Amino acid sequence: MSKIYVVGIGPGAYEQMTMRAAEALNACDVIVGYTVYVDLVKEHFAGKEFLTTPMKKEVDRCILAFEEAKKGKTVAMICSGDAGVYGMSGLMLEIGERYPDIEVEMISGVTAALGGASVLGAPLIHDFALISLSDLMTPWEKIEKRLLLASEADFVICLYNPSSKKRHDYLQKACDLMMQHKSPETVCGIVTNIGREKEEGKVMTLRKLRDTPVDMFTTVFVGNSQTRQINGKMVTPRGYTY
Amino acid sequence: MSKIYVVGIGPGAYEQMTMRAAEALNACDVIVGYTVYVDLVKEHFAGKEFLTTPMKKEVDRCILAFEEAKKGKTVAMICSGDAGVYGMSGLMLEIGERYPDIEVEMISGVTAALGGASVLGAPLIHDFALISLSDLMTPWEKIEKRLLLASEADFVICLYNPSSKKRHDYLQKACDLMMQHKSPETVCGIVTNIGREKEEGKVMTLRKLRDTPVDMFTTVFVGNSQTRQINGKMVTPRGYTY
Repeated sequence: MSKIYVVGIGPGAYEQMTMRAAEALNACDVIVGYTVYVDLVKEHFAGKEFLTTPMKKEVDRCILAFEEAKKGKTVAMICSGDAGVYGMSGLMLEIGERYPDIEVEMISGVTAALGGASVLGAPLIHDFALISLSDLMTPWEKIEKRLLLASEADFVICLYNPSSKKRHDYLQKACDLMMQHKSPETVCGIVTNIGREKEEGKVMTLRKLRDTPVDMFTTVFVGNSQTRQINGKMVTPRGYTY
Repeated sequence: MSKIYVVGIGPGAYEQMTMRAAEALNACDVIVGYTVYVDLVKEHFAGKEFLTTPMKKEVDRCILAFEEAKKGKTVAMICSGDAGVYGMSGLMLEIGERYPDIEVEMISGVTAALGGASVLGAPLIHDFALISLSDLMTPWEKIEKRLLLASEADFVICLYNPSSKKRHDYLQKACDLMMQHKSPETVCGIVTNIGREKEEGKVMTLRKLRDTPVDMFTTVFVGNSQTRQINGKMVTPRGYTY
């Protein structure tokens, strides 16, 4: 039976991939992915066949993977971070209904929330909520509701896709919503280019975050009421006494 | 300057560790951790010095790591999953205030939510909240509030520490709270022994989950209103049309 591995390659650097992910990429004939991610792994897996589709062609990309597997090839579908967090593993299982003879195995990776947290310090030590600000496939009202309720519940909140060309003011809108329940002094952080060149983390207040320009390569962290700054790091205590 | 790596070793299997984590463990002189996790890595890092402290001795464990580093050794403090998610990286930075000359670097790993999601299918594809049911260091009222508001916001919810000897009915209580906002037919899943021998995932309804016994090695996933079962897998759609 043909097999497809759906592989999270981690936040960027080759070394942030799990050994199991590297083994799967070594074991496969074809590596399928979004152009940018395929370029990230290409040099480490010479001799493989590489197939790419651009952004917004996710359904085509999945079908491509299954059609290659149907030819008898072992296929790896790669995603940045973890394929199971805003990645392709869900769509692969949905499209997979049409290809009952092809086995699909998921291989976890370090998603940007975890990779970015390591850069900032320890913001996610306690309960947290992960929210994407992209309203391409989710109504903004639903995002708004989640921001408000997660803030009311005093979750640490990690935001994916905080901005794009068309949505330049979304982070500002999100901060205003969160400030309905969180103090403007809440410790926050942003990380850009996680695991890549020019990786950078900055710690700031929620008030400051509101007016900080971010791009689509930024992951945003908003603390809970206990999060504090220690030597420039963002740290959410778990509650140990010492 | 002495250095401590705070390393997430992933959900269990050696191969689920990142390459960077393995490099850090290779580069260090001493590996410090909770007894169970040190036993998991021991065979792969022969020749290292291993130091352990039991559960509930987390503060002592951190001090031990800093004191070893103070002697000039390179130290790795290991945690299961990711050290930044209910792990030791926060406490290490807090205790680290007393040791300003020792550098602390975090190395991310695959936390149980991600490892378990890969076993079940793709439950975490969209916005999710991570909640620990342990009330050892968090008042139960706060946990209750988070369960209610996260359910109202229609997050996928992943539960850590769903049970223990003293808290055998906590998952039941949590399910009753979530059912105030989520349908009893909500697709849920549990995973035991992630990345280890006897790894097992089961998909069921929220109603069924309520009366399912779980132990402390179980990670629980509660879907959102869109989560469905596909060929026995738990899948949360992201919204692609196909």
